[in-house]
Amino acid sequence: MSANAPIIDETHDPALRSWVQSERDCVDFPIQNLPLGIFCRAGEAPRGGVAIGRYIVDLAALAGSGLLEGEALAAAEAASGPALNPLLALGTATRRALRRRLSALLREGAGERTAIEPLLVPMAEAEMHLPARIGDYTDFYVGIHHAANIGAIFRPENPLLPNYKHVPIGYHGRASTVRPSGTAVIRPLGQTKAPDADVPSFGPARRLDHELELGLWIATGNELGSTIPIAEALDHVAGLSLLNDWSARDVQAWEYQPLGPFLAKNFVTTVSPWLVTMEALSPFRRAQPPRPENDPRALPYLWDEGDQASGALSLTLEVHLSTAAMRDAGLAPHRLSSGPATNMYWTLAQMVTHHASNGCALMPGDLMGSGTISGPDDGSQGSLMEITRNARNAIALPSGETRTFLEDGDEIVLTGRFEAEGYRAIGLGECRGTITPARG
Amino acid sequence: MSANAPIIDETHDPALRSWVQSERDCVDFPIQNLPLGIFCRAGEAPRGGVAIGRYIVDLAALAGSGLLEGEALAAAEAASGPALNPLLALGTATRRALRRRLSALLREGAGERTAIEPLLVPMAEAEMHLPARIGDYTDFYVGIHHAANIGAIFRPENPLLPNYKHVPIGYHGRASTVRPSGTAVIRPLGQTKAPDADVPSFGPARRLDHELELGLWIATGNELGSTIPIAEALDHVAGLSLLNDWSARDVQAWEYQPLGPFLAKNFVTTVSPWLVTMEALSPFRRAQPPRPENDPRALPYLWDEGDQASGALSLTLEVHLSTAAMRDAGLAPHRLSSGPATNMYWTLAQMVTHHASNGCALMPGDLMGSGTISGPDDGSQGSLMEITRNARNAIALPSGETRTFLEDGDEIVLTGRFEAEGYRAIGLGECRGTITPARG
Repeated sequence: MSANAPIIDETHDPALRSWVQSERDCVDFPIQNLPLGIFCRAGEAPRGGVAIGRYIVDLAALAGSGLLEGEALAAAEAASGPALNPLLALGTATRRALRRRLSALLREGAGERTAIEPLLVPMAEAEMHLPARIGDYTDFYVGIHHAANIGAIFRPENPLLPNYKHVPIGYHGRASTVRPSGTAVIRPLGQTKAPDADVPSFGPARRLDHELELGLWIATGNELGSTIPIAEALDHVAGLSLLNDWSARDVQAWEYQPLGPFLAKNFVTTVSPWLVTMEALSPFRRAQPPRPENDPRALPYLWDEGDQASGALSLTLEVHLSTAAMRDAGLAPHRLSSGPATNMYWTLAQMVTHHASNGCALMPGDLMGSGTISGPDDGSQGSLMEITRNARNAIALPSGETRTFLEDGDEIVLTGRFEAEGYRAIGLGECRGTITPARG
Repeated sequence: MSANAPIIDETHDPALRSWVQSERDCVDFPIQNLPLGIFCRAGEAPRGGVAIGRYIVDLAALAGSGLLEGEALAAAEAASGPALNPLLALGTATRRALRRRLSALLREGAGERTAIEPLLVPMAEAEMHLPARIGDYTDFYVGIHHAANIGAIFRPENPLLPNYKHVPIGYHGRASTVRPSGTAVIRPLGQTKAPDADVPSFGPARRLDHELELGLWIATGNELGSTIPIAEALDHVAGLSLLNDWSARDVQAWEYQPLGPFLAKNFVTTVSPWLVTMEALSPFRRAQPPRPENDPRALPYLWDEGDQASGALSLTLEVHLSTAAMRDAGLAPHRLSSGPATNMYWTLAQMVTHHASNGCALMPGDLMGSGTISGPDDGSQGSLMEITRNARNAIALPSGETRTFLEDGDEIVLTGRFEAEGYRAIGLGECRGTITPARG
């Protein structure tokens, strides 16, 4: 069987419930999810944890509890430090052993309940960190409608470049400025040049935007000079988070030729802190939508029937905006977009295989962004540049305010929910960020 | 005084000689240089060392010798592990204290000679590693003649883009595939499309090239959201190495639109293993050549008179090629290019300040490439694409062979030598790489 194939077992049974009471009505983190993260309480050392309801199972404490053995114990021990990289390096089978043991320990009626209860930390008391120490961060561009929407703004006659349907386009981002959800997004300073100006100026970016993306975390990597066959690619993926690729559009327009985006995007990148494992999302995998009839065939190194049969996700992604005035008035956040993750032209496996196809070494804990995921229609576009047609059409908000790009005090929240017939839904949690004024 | 100003002291005295005999005729590593690196002998743990002649002073052993105290001891202790990051994080004053103490211990007549001799390791017995654990690698594009030469090939009517003289153009590279000199350069596989082909194909890259660059190592960094004023920028730089940004031109041409180079450059990047400190190269700093009269003024955040007065380098860079047949025939390597590092439009300080100008966090051990350094004339161009006018003019070699791009077995060696009137010359060492056949 291909390493790409989803594996569904009793941990996915939709009837399962936990003795953790808050699990019952939790939309993101029921017992069928069990995502991995790094947390601490004030003054404590950061360490691995697993989310269930409104609690976190302390994996360092669990490793020392005597309740685990074999591969599950090895997994918890590897997750006891300040980053999940050692666990990710152990691969799929070890992660899965921990999942199966946790599912047994946390389910209703488990005899170990009284031993586990002291190992639970309320999420309300915890600070979340990045799940892994990111060696390299790569951002792809697989949201075809985003590529076409942005292309139509800059190149109306030729929105999609000739390479798009052959190459999973990607570029390198900045690892040092990836931060967990909740980190303030300080409006960056930068060089911009208005189309009618003779010379550029330097100051706070005025066209600040969000980008709705999925973040993919690498598990086992590959040695320099070796490659990752497409049929094995998902065995190298630990799981997914949400990712907001904050972008200063005015800086981007001036700086990005000829080598791509740089300071327009590396001031901060925000990820949701819970890594939802490939095991957890197995029931929500579905066939990749067939390529339109006139599209080219993918080259053989990027094509695997197993991947095509199960490489897409039954995942709905949403973006909400609230301004400071909206929060002051008690108004609910305004939904900017909602759409399916099937708007990805290339699969996760294709991204991974392409990245390693030249012998580039991928390392445990590396992060890959999908690129902005937009739908073809209004209401499903993953950035303000698309929604407002590059600031031509302002958005009307329930507070009476309008927006073209983000203003100081605005908060963007990304969410993602996996749903499939016959299974209990799970979620990716939240990826939040609030714009704060420029410094200096 | 500006932190950018060169500091010249008695460690630069051209009359100084070492009791290490091989220092006398060593062009790269006389006692005036004392570059930092990470080395080990077979079976030993990698640790910090300082090059002198054909020997390495073992800093871990020196730290335990009782011969150091104060800041010099702190520096050697910080350099005793497998990467120099802890030393780099301590900043300029600590590095300088170690330099001054080493200069005293190693000079002719030093009473500590017999205590130091057992701490010397012959370079011939040592394997060199990367000097630092690289968090992020950024590649700039400050070689203006390279930008113009490459631009003239692709856009004859408009070789330099409008932003070039305003923005120190840069983009993110891949940290996981930076390797020390001597690492095999495996010919990468990749997607390419001939101009007259309907569809791309996947196979070994055929237009493999070198790029002659300087590598800049970050010392102390900056916090996310803070910036680095231009007058303080060089205080954040530890020093320089040589860097070869190996490039697959046929892959690059097909993949790089619209987000920049990716797999065409991340299969491997080679650096020379010795970090020549800013202290060591102080005597070789000189005024940045004035901007041509019609060029725009740099924006104020990028302009510092002190930097302009001493931000350029009296450094000659060379590239040599030898083929397998040339080596078999005992022929000397063929010099492909020789030129001054003053062909950089932006200074090192401008690169650092621009990178952090949006609040991007730089970290100790981060690596920045200068971009290819080419002169305006034949004989001084830092890549084969320029030398051969994109394969139109083949190079004739002394073996009777010709080359347009690199073939399997070809070896490229980069060297760099600092020279200035009244000072003893120092060098950057070598950055070597040999092309090996594609795999798979």
